Amino acid sequence: MKIFSTQRRDSVAAFGERRLISKIQRWLGNASPRSPFGIGDDCAVVPSTGRPMLITTDPVIYGQHFDDAVPARAVGAKLLKRNISDIAAMGGRPLAAVVSLALAPEVNTRWLSEFYRGLAAAARAFRVRIVGGDITQGPRGFFGAFLTLHGEAAGARAVTRHGARAGDLIYVTGELGGSRLGHHFKFTPRIEAGAWLARRPEVRAMMDLSDGLAKDLGSLTPAGLAPALCGPAIPISRAARRRARQTGEEPLTHALCDGEDYELLIVIGRETDRTALERAWRARFPRVRLTAIGVFERVTRRAAFAHAVRLQDYHGYEHLR
Amino acid sequence: MKIFSTQRRDSVAAFGERRLISKIQRWLGNASPRSPFGIGDDCAVVPSTGRPMLITTDPVIYGQHFDDAVPARAVGAKLLKRNISDIAAMGGRPLAAVVSLALAPEVNTRWLSEFYRGLAAAARAFRVRIVGGDITQGPRGFFGAFLTLHGEAAGARAVTRHGARAGDLIYVTGELGGSRLGHHFKFTPRIEAGAWLARRPEVRAMMDLSDGLAKDLGSLTPAGLAPALCGPAIPISRAARRRARQTGEEPLTHALCDGEDYELLIVIGRETDRTALERAWRARFPRVRLTAIGVFERVTRRAAFAHAVRLQDYHGYEHLR
Repeated sequence: MKIFSTQRRDSVAAFGERRLISKIQRWLGNASPRSPFGIGDDCAVVPSTGRPMLITTDPVIYGQHFDDAVPARAVGAKLLKRNISDIAAMGGRPLAAVVSLALAPEVNTRWLSEFYRGLAAAARAFRVRIVGGDITQGPRGFFGAFLTLHGEAAGARAVTRHGARAGDLIYVTGELGGSRLGHHFKFTPRIEAGAWLARRPEVRAMMDLSDGLAKDLGSLTPAGLAPALCGPAIPISRAARRRARQTGEEPLTHALCDGEDYELLIVIGRETDRTALERAWRARFPRVRLTAIGVFERVTRRAAFAHAVRLQDYHGYEHLR
Repeated sequence: MKIFSTQRRDSVAAFGERRLISKIQRWLGNASPRSPFGIGDDCAVVPSTGRPMLITTDPVIYGQHFDDAVPARAVGAKLLKRNISDIAAMGGRPLAAVVSLALAPEVNTRWLSEFYRGLAAAARAFRVRIVGGDITQGPRGFFGAFLTLHGEAAGARAVTRHGARAGDLIYVTGELGGSRLGHHFKFTPRIEAGAWLARRPEVRAMMDLSDGLAKDLGSLTPAGLAPALCGPAIPISRAARRRARQTGEEPLTHALCDGEDYELLIVIGRETDRTALERAWRARFPRVRLTAIGVFERVTRRAAFAHAVRLQDYHGYEHLR
């Protein structure tokens, strides 16, 4: 289904604002509580749990994150899931979201209903409540949905990106690459894995992979250190291998650069009993790989491995071009 | 200054994403705390105060909320102030905000720096911290900034829009109308007045006026009741009178329909000692008017006053056309 309609009667402009809001409440169903705990007041009221709040915001924009080939439900689900992935990356639990829409008057109401049904299904799956939002008219041909997600630390702490020290190990969950073959709509944010890892004292830092390992790794790297990645150790997805056959590039390039993996990148203290950690992981998450892929070295002692990946040869996703 | 540059070297595309983020941190200055309490991690961490959270979201979009005639600083300030007004409407205190930008690559970096400086100045004035955000490329000619603001109830309760009963009085702060003459960039959200009113037990319901009294009043009106407004009592701003001279319409039309007043609309219990309330108000807010403008009547007993305004003749701001 196309997002924009050529028939005015199928468009949001024909609905008008007030009717559209009540439709959205119906499409969201029990994913959206009633006012003042949900849509319909000046603010949403969210009861405090007393724990530190986690707040993150990410949009989906037509032409940038999706096109007419992607089902509307998948777009709505992705909008929430990419934000949940940020909460997972700090070891948190998602709670409540608000959605600000900017949309052209010619957006097809059937497309929009599918979008909200996909959002609602993801919200129910991850126990997130859609508590409010805003609708504003945008220019012709535009659709952007801007979600802000609130959560809290699931355990005693929120794991930040800061904390790597020389000799610490770099781990990654799952497999990387190939997002352009559709994975970036089908992924499951690592919310349980993130909470489990945050409870392990040997985890020093963590983030989720959204722009590609080659670029994102920089955010975990303190001044004076550099990551040395062991190329053959990096878990490459089947989708990345397939994509490599299409593009003629090496599979590692796709694993490092495609972006939108939504896997967790983890820094583990150098003194960790790796065998015990990996055994505990396998017992809890038997179907998800946890792989050591490298180490943080002092800049003066680069190239720990013969196979160390020259990261400067790879580039992640650049948002502004 | 125009928002879009014709010279690539003056545009955000020339900056690139990483440099732009560090520039934004500089422009925000001390309005933005350091990671993990601010920009730079997967989520922002906001300490809990234990009170119920208030969450609201409103954008500013080029061509919709502003044009090249409006100074960039005023646009940035308005983005925050219109969200603060929603917190004020529930008797809350604003705390922390995230900003999601969707912007064309040709946005002028000088314009953007002024935008963020205006945002930062408003954040400092209202003690709001800008704790995070996102930047995504949008289509040519597009600029939208989507802010989500978090606050908490300032006192024991958050005042919702629900609670009006037959015979309750309708009050409004300040004066209405004329927003198109610039007031909607210069207004001060009624944050102290909102908190004060929320502590008064006689206040049954409250909201802020954003789409015009004629339209917004519907959100305060329970089924079975109707507002009867006393036309001559409605405080009309000088800007609305000036605008009426320009348009040839009656000043009341502008007071009811212009929108973007950002004044508080308040429902006061029918049994209230109005004299005591109004005296206490004047002692606390000597420079801000608080005016009784009408009453909620049962639908069967419409037209309480000879002058009752026929609200169906007036229309507020319609967001989707």
